[in-house]
Amino acid sequence: MLTLHLLEQSRALRILWLLEILGADYTLQTYPRDPQTLLAPEALKRIHPLGKSPLLQDGSLTLAESGAITDYLIRSYGQGRLMPAEGTAQYWQYQRWLHYAEASLMPLLLLSLIFRKIETAPAPFFVKPISRKISAKVKASFIAPQTALHLSHIEQELSGKDWLMGELSGADIMMSYPLQAAESRFGLTGYPNLQAYLQRIAAHPAYRRAVAKAGEAVLRVD
Amino acid sequence: MLTLHLLEQSRALRILWLLEILGADYTLQTYPRDPQTLLAPEALKRIHPLGKSPLLQDGSLTLAESGAITDYLIRSYGQGRLMPAEGTAQYWQYQRWLHYAEASLMPLLLLSLIFRKIETAPAPFFVKPISRKISAKVKASFIAPQTALHLSHIEQELSGKDWLMGELSGADIMMSYPLQAAESRFGLTGYPNLQAYLQRIAAHPAYRRAVAKAGEAVLRVD
Repeated sequence: MLTLHLLEQSRALRILWLLEILGADYTLQTYPRDPQTLLAPEALKRIHPLGKSPLLQDGSLTLAESGAITDYLIRSYGQGRLMPAEGTAQYWQYQRWLHYAEASLMPLLLLSLIFRKIETAPAPFFVKPISRKISAKVKASFIAPQTALHLSHIEQELSGKDWLMGELSGADIMMSYPLQAAESRFGLTGYPNLQAYLQRIAAHPAYRRAVAKAGEAVLRVD
Repeated sequence: MLTLHLLEQSRALRILWLLEILGADYTLQTYPRDPQTLLAPEALKRIHPLGKSPLLQDGSLTLAESGAITDYLIRSYGQGRLMPAEGTAQYWQYQRWLHYAEASLMPLLLLSLIFRKIETAPAPFFVKPISRKISAKVKASFIAPQTALHLSHIEQELSGKDWLMGELSGADIMMSYPLQAAESRFGLTGYPNLQAYLQRIAAHPAYRRAVAKAGEAVLRVD
């Protein structure tokens, strides 16, 4: 029996999308955010010590990490769909995307969010210009050029393709959230392939069903 | 023919350790950091558009992402060593560690490093107290409690074991760098299992050979 533990408005929406694509028989357990901190509630720590979402239970297996869960569900229930044939060069590029989404792209969005919080936090009038200046410096020297480098790379990878591996795969499921976060944070002007890709995701019937059940994902520190 | 493209003093040391464990026939191509930015040099972009290290070439395959490279090398050249039997629950917990190291643990170290840079950056006397206060707030409210949560979790997972999966595996190879970074950044007082684990890694013969070839890894923004 599959159970998805999902923190509301979180990256766990990806796994719900995947379960809907697979047509899997699953139970959805949703958790509200702590109203003060907006973090995951303590209840998730009873499932797994880090108390993070998503968490997947399948019988006695409790699995954390979006990339590992995506890989697990597709390998276990995909019947060969949603991934390239194992052992091929394509398969390893697919695995690369599964890691890349959270390991390389997402940290830039996390940084961007934290510095936005620093800029907009309530502060005395003589602090505001300094906190804005610090934030501007980190953005100009690191976050902005790195984000542009990454988005240009993905834009290029999507050239002439609807999905990263040609057909819809776990790579697209993993990449959806950081790219949606990038769109909400920076907009995607100048990246037409990325814009069309996100529209394709938003219109995907299984994605629509996932959103109807759990709401859209929002870029938050969790 | 295997070629590892390695940025000096970087997380790519892990992959060199793995190649040494495997006794693989490989070429090591090292790249100095840009002396101004300490980032990877432009030359790496000729291998892969993001210009990040590590990059692995195996014939016509060029693979990025430490987690994917570790998985690839062990699956291709491990002859069943360094990973649990595929499809078992242990295998999926192993995969979880491969993702966790860079997706969940490493971003905390990156944040910690960036706020340290903000604190120590040259600044006028009236800016210093404010930048220190901003940094202290992010550390107290987010970085410190999250890091403690993660380190306690790993400390617990190492209880009664030499290696995360019992035997040395790709999970240890991936976890080595963020834990070494945590030790250099915070020390590991109060985490005796983690301390012993890092000593075990530092003393591992193949790890010593890797360090002799490429030097120790250092926590840097790259």
